[in-house]
Amino acid sequence: MARIVQKFGGTSVADVDRIRKVAGRVKREVDAGHELAVVVSAMAGTTNQLVDWTRQTSTLHDAREYDAVVASGEQVTAGLLALALQELGVNARSWLGWQVPIRTDGIHGKARIREIPTDEIVRRMREGQVAVVAGFQGLGPDNRITTLGRGGSDTSAVALAAALRAERCDIFTDVEGVYTTDPRIVAKARKLDKITYEEMLELASQGAKVLQTRSVEMAMNHRVRVQVLSSFNDAPGTLVVDEDEIVEQQVVSGIAYSRDEAKITLLKVADRPGVAAAIFGPLADHAINVDMIVQNISEDGRFTDLTFTVGKADLDRAVKVLEEKRASLGFAALKPDPDVVKISVIGVGMRSHAGVAQQMFKTLAEKNINIQVISTSEIKVSVLLAEEYTELALRALHTAYGLDAS
Amino acid sequence: MARIVQKFGGTSVADVDRIRKVAGRVKREVDAGHELAVVVSAMAGTTNQLVDWTRQTSTLHDAREYDAVVASGEQVTAGLLALALQELGVNARSWLGWQVPIRTDGIHGKARIREIPTDEIVRRMREGQVAVVAGFQGLGPDNRITTLGRGGSDTSAVALAAALRAERCDIFTDVEGVYTTDPRIVAKARKLDKITYEEMLELASQGAKVLQTRSVEMAMNHRVRVQVLSSFNDAPGTLVVDEDEIVEQQVVSGIAYSRDEAKITLLKVADRPGVAAAIFGPLADHAINVDMIVQNISEDGRFTDLTFTVGKADLDRAVKVLEEKRASLGFAALKPDPDVVKISVIGVGMRSHAGVAQQMFKTLAEKNINIQVISTSEIKVSVLLAEEYTELALRALHTAYGLDAS
Repeated sequence: MARIVQKFGGTSVADVDRIRKVAGRVKREVDAGHELAVVVSAMAGTTNQLVDWTRQTSTLHDAREYDAVVASGEQVTAGLLALALQELGVNARSWLGWQVPIRTDGIHGKARIREIPTDEIVRRMREGQVAVVAGFQGLGPDNRITTLGRGGSDTSAVALAAALRAERCDIFTDVEGVYTTDPRIVAKARKLDKITYEEMLELASQGAKVLQTRSVEMAMNHRVRVQVLSSFNDAPGTLVVDEDEIVEQQVVSGIAYSRDEAKITLLKVADRPGVAAAIFGPLADHAINVDMIVQNISEDGRFTDLTFTVGKADLDRAVKVLEEKRASLGFAALKPDPDVVKISVIGVGMRSHAGVAQQMFKTLAEKNINIQVISTSEIKVSVLLAEEYTELALRALHTAYGLDAS
Repeated sequence: MARIVQKFGGTSVADVDRIRKVAGRVKREVDAGHELAVVVSAMAGTTNQLVDWTRQTSTLHDAREYDAVVASGEQVTAGLLALALQELGVNARSWLGWQVPIRTDGIHGKARIREIPTDEIVRRMREGQVAVVAGFQGLGPDNRITTLGRGGSDTSAVALAAALRAERCDIFTDVEGVYTTDPRIVAKARKLDKITYEEMLELASQGAKVLQTRSVEMAMNHRVRVQVLSSFNDAPGTLVVDEDEIVEQQVVSGIAYSRDEAKITLLKVADRPGVAAAIFGPLADHAINVDMIVQNISEDGRFTDLTFTVGKADLDRAVKVLEEKRASLGFAALKPDPDVVKISVIGVGMRSHAGVAQQMFKTLAEKNINIQVISTSEIKVSVLLAEEYTELALRALHTAYGLDAS
């Protein structure tokens, strides 16, 4: 007998019929003698509709009201799934964020979970009751509903699994698990049986959409065993686990890509101390995140070219902020470029294997693909390329690192 | 400066555009210096959709889960109206039932309000903040959402007005006020400027759908001045007030009708003590309400015919319950008849004026309409007729009591 948390996303609970199927799946685990807590998202499309209504109503966007409106979606699914379970003879009740309560900080719209008291839920689980918990939502210190940001139901599930000391947290989604890369682009992509927290974190933050980054951080911090699997079939999924659970570690586990970044190049920036702070300070003040940065030393030592990336959605604002500072920054020209892709190869094996970056540069060179920016971390090498090379680069790298399915 | 509660029903908040118009209307009162609390229903159609989902999901109907699902509709409207008010520069916040909290008993699906603490809302009203309160919902002793039954938002509004000691409770709806009778049937129906609580209560419970019966009871008990008016124009509505506020009282104020009843006649029931209890006891045990009752004394004193009405929706069940008891009750035949209408003339003036019932019987006789059952109360005379006479009877009575618009 184990304690298991299961999380079902929007497509898994898209309508009453799908909710009934989810109930059947939960019942199987209950019948096997396990204690179950189930976290649900809003029915597919509901959250978008609710967000759209708040935007139509107000440009001012009081995040507290936004949270009250948008959290209603998960409330509906939680109640319906509890009813569907009861219909199958399973003892179940719904829990809204404020009822558990899932205590968060007061940052409405993107709150962070602080504490989840579980005494009452555990008591009822031991009596055989399934806890159906509305995902994505919590209770702020102001006694108002908070939401955790888009995709926050993953975080709800992992946090609940941590609080309940669950043996496993199953994240049901519309894909069968974590792949070596996007199977829609690379036909030979393989589903991974296991992946480490660190790799999953890099994959998530480098563009793979399968799990929300914060949920992976939380799983890593609390050592929650997460399984990503499909709610549409019974195939085994991918386990996200500690490094020591993986016996034979690949050097490279996966390749992520992100088209969500844009490049900005500042030409002939004065090469003097403090210039980087002068450029990136105003961007930070406007809540614009900068990711990759390269600085080319100029030949005469007086000027330098500076290239960096920002979120594509922030590009216009970033350009405006910098143009306004042009006089004080003293650059000669500003060249924005939205048509870029960031490709990252990721693997904990890099720590002990040399030559991973070199393999990447060589493979791209063989395909005549120019690398615009490079950045590396302990378990990741990222390059920025012209967006048109996305598919070509992904397929070439997938083969070069020996990831192709046989 | 006054304290006012306003309530907007489903058609008044049917979409974002209507919600914006409601915000404009609330702002006018705020600009006039008043303190405002606004109670909202779900957007038109939403509650039906949510109820439908719960029915599709489960036949068992756990009312606690039903409440969690269905209450989400008002939550959305409350958040959106708060946003719309803010957009107009009005300080506003939403309050969900559990936040106020609107404390109710534990009867999920049709809870009754027990207590509304208002200290915090009043403090904020004094600072100029509009309280936007989700109608129809409260918090049960089990710390779960309760709902007040269909149309419960009227009750929420009146209860809040009582708790806030508001000067007035404006109920905005899709009609312009309370009419002498249904204007869709009687073209000469007139809007009433004022009506007493007692009359409104009888009108509501006899079929007029303009206010929920319980909300009128509550208004009467707490002496809340209620105004029924249209959210679609600026015409003055109908004030529901204490009898002593109405200087010149009509003998008859209004005529209601209800097609929601059905008639059952039991022929040749043994005329002995206890037989009525033997018949109506089992019906009560099955939660079937009986309304009008007549018993005809038989000629020989051994048998009697018994006629009574039940809700049309309960007719089949009532027949089944009685047929099962046929042997012990010993009636000769059971004749159900769903094709009846109950018409009621209502007016507090009846207390001091004789001949109101006689006028009704005479008018119906002149039109050759047979009266099947009669019942009276202090301020009401009701008759049961064949349903096909509904329009004819309503128009004739409206004229006979001098209610026609000139």
